[in-house]
Amino acid sequence: MSLLTIGTVAFDTIETPFGRAERVVGGACTYISWAASYFTNDINLVSIVGDDFPDDEIKALEARGVDMSGLEIVEGKKSFFWEGKYHENMNNRDTIATELNVLADFDPVLPESFKDSQYVMLGNLTPEIQIKVMDQLTKPKLVVMDTMNFWMDIAMDTLKKAITRVDVLTINDEEARQLSGEYSLVNAAAKIHEMGPTYLIIKKGEHGALLFHEGNIFSAPALPLARVNDPTGAGDSFAGGFIGYLAKTDDISFENMKRAIIMGSVTASFCVEEFSIGKLKSLNQEDIKRRVEAFKALVSFDL
Amino acid sequence: MSLLTIGTVAFDTIETPFGRAERVVGGACTYISWAASYFTNDINLVSIVGDDFPDDEIKALEARGVDMSGLEIVEGKKSFFWEGKYHENMNNRDTIATELNVLADFDPVLPESFKDSQYVMLGNLTPEIQIKVMDQLTKPKLVVMDTMNFWMDIAMDTLKKAITRVDVLTINDEEARQLSGEYSLVNAAAKIHEMGPTYLIIKKGEHGALLFHEGNIFSAPALPLARVNDPTGAGDSFAGGFIGYLAKTDDISFENMKRAIIMGSVTASFCVEEFSIGKLKSLNQEDIKRRVEAFKALVSFDL
Repeated sequence: MSLLTIGTVAFDTIETPFGRAERVVGGACTYISWAASYFTNDINLVSIVGDDFPDDEIKALEARGVDMSGLEIVEGKKSFFWEGKYHENMNNRDTIATELNVLADFDPVLPESFKDSQYVMLGNLTPEIQIKVMDQLTKPKLVVMDTMNFWMDIAMDTLKKAITRVDVLTINDEEARQLSGEYSLVNAAAKIHEMGPTYLIIKKGEHGALLFHEGNIFSAPALPLARVNDPTGAGDSFAGGFIGYLAKTDDISFENMKRAIIMGSVTASFCVEEFSIGKLKSLNQEDIKRRVEAFKALVSFDL
Repeated sequence: MSLLTIGTVAFDTIETPFGRAERVVGGACTYISWAASYFTNDINLVSIVGDDFPDDEIKALEARGVDMSGLEIVEGKKSFFWEGKYHENMNNRDTIATELNVLADFDPVLPESFKDSQYVMLGNLTPEIQIKVMDQLTKPKLVVMDTMNFWMDIAMDTLKKAITRVDVLTINDEEARQLSGEYSLVNAAAKIHEMGPTYLIIKKGEHGALLFHEGNIFSAPALPLARVNDPTGAGDSFAGGFIGYLAKTDDISFENMKRAIIMGSVTASFCVEEFSIGKLKSLNQEDIKRRVEAFKALVSFDL
């Protein structure tokens, strides 16, 4: 089934305890699309860049089955840029610089052929833009939305309006607590379900992810890794693997959502091993399969 | 098989966002023994209290199959006392007061009938005392040791000597990093294996636990709970359920260790629901069974 991805396509400068990468390719939509491309080659990308964005990066995504006709290229302007520095523990980071550039005027207009996309991944953006995209969709089968505490701080009302219209919300544990006002994640999930989403995914980074649905909970671990070079894009790679698998299998039951969570965990585990999309660009189906087996081994017990 | 438990038997005053409990029964050995008692009734307890410790608490453990002849009762002195206050997030706590009392002179002498105990749980105590206990054992089948950052800060050399002699070490993620000097838990585990323990359990509180053994990893979640009233004793209840199940089944293979981890997670999940040992004292086999099923459901997926 067709998958629509929307979010930033951008440059990042990233410093972690293991190195530094200058003006490398980043952006939520980039990570989502690369991760999803290992499960489906029917992807419609919607984003915006300046004329500084490398053509071969666009061609590389096209070669993976991503329709790039929804990528607006603004002549004479620069792409969105983010610079961040990770702390020793890699769970915290400081934003050093944010340059909105083309993103300041982003007003996505979906190509006609994108409007009937069945699976929709709204990457982290202003809730206004996420709503504008939903307004243009004819009848999506599943809308997944990612967001962050920043929008809860400055645009909670609009964010809540957006949330009423989505099927799956992906946020981290602190954001779930902020959004719901509940400390217990079980109680937070119950309140967030009342806001609209029938599925809630709580991303916990190196501690894995939780899926909540109608009183049921699924817990997926993260794969313990010998080296994490760069956590940037882990959540987006998770979202991409998750929705890519759903679009491929076209099954939105709780049981299949669990499988999709594992696929998201798999793509996220690859993402963090190298800076930028270095590792995500170089995978094959055998790599995916082997890591799925590693996840099965990691949690399997017989009682 | 016979199980030896050693650690504090004590009083705690505990404040959490959900309430306050004054001078309630606590101590590592108390939690370990209660948790283990749901799996085996052949438990040898070694600890020390003052003459202020309630006799009915001693009798309650005896009724669960715990041999209390190794509990030294010091007339005219008071039991160990700890007071703590948990932060809003319950993952952090401040120690308000610590009164060593009888613990200052604790020099455990094992009753003759305890020396051939097969399974040994060394609760968190000074590493000197943990070594003294190991010196008195004839030929234990499995020694599990719990410790904490406090001993790493003030007695690292003695702690490392103790660690060379144990089969399973249980610590939290930050402690694993401190002990090994490695940030990645995979690399930390490799270094800690070199120090002696063939099994390493990393306790992650609300994020579950990891078991490392010969390059294999098992990840167990914690059960998401609607209410956690008091996290005190969660790690000890985990250890008690873990070693209680191993003593019952007398099987120290990696596969059985995984089952034991689930049993530890089950007893820990009950522990935190009420203050002190309130919940741990009131369980039956049906409660344990139902919660084991909840853990199975929580992680099960079919790929």
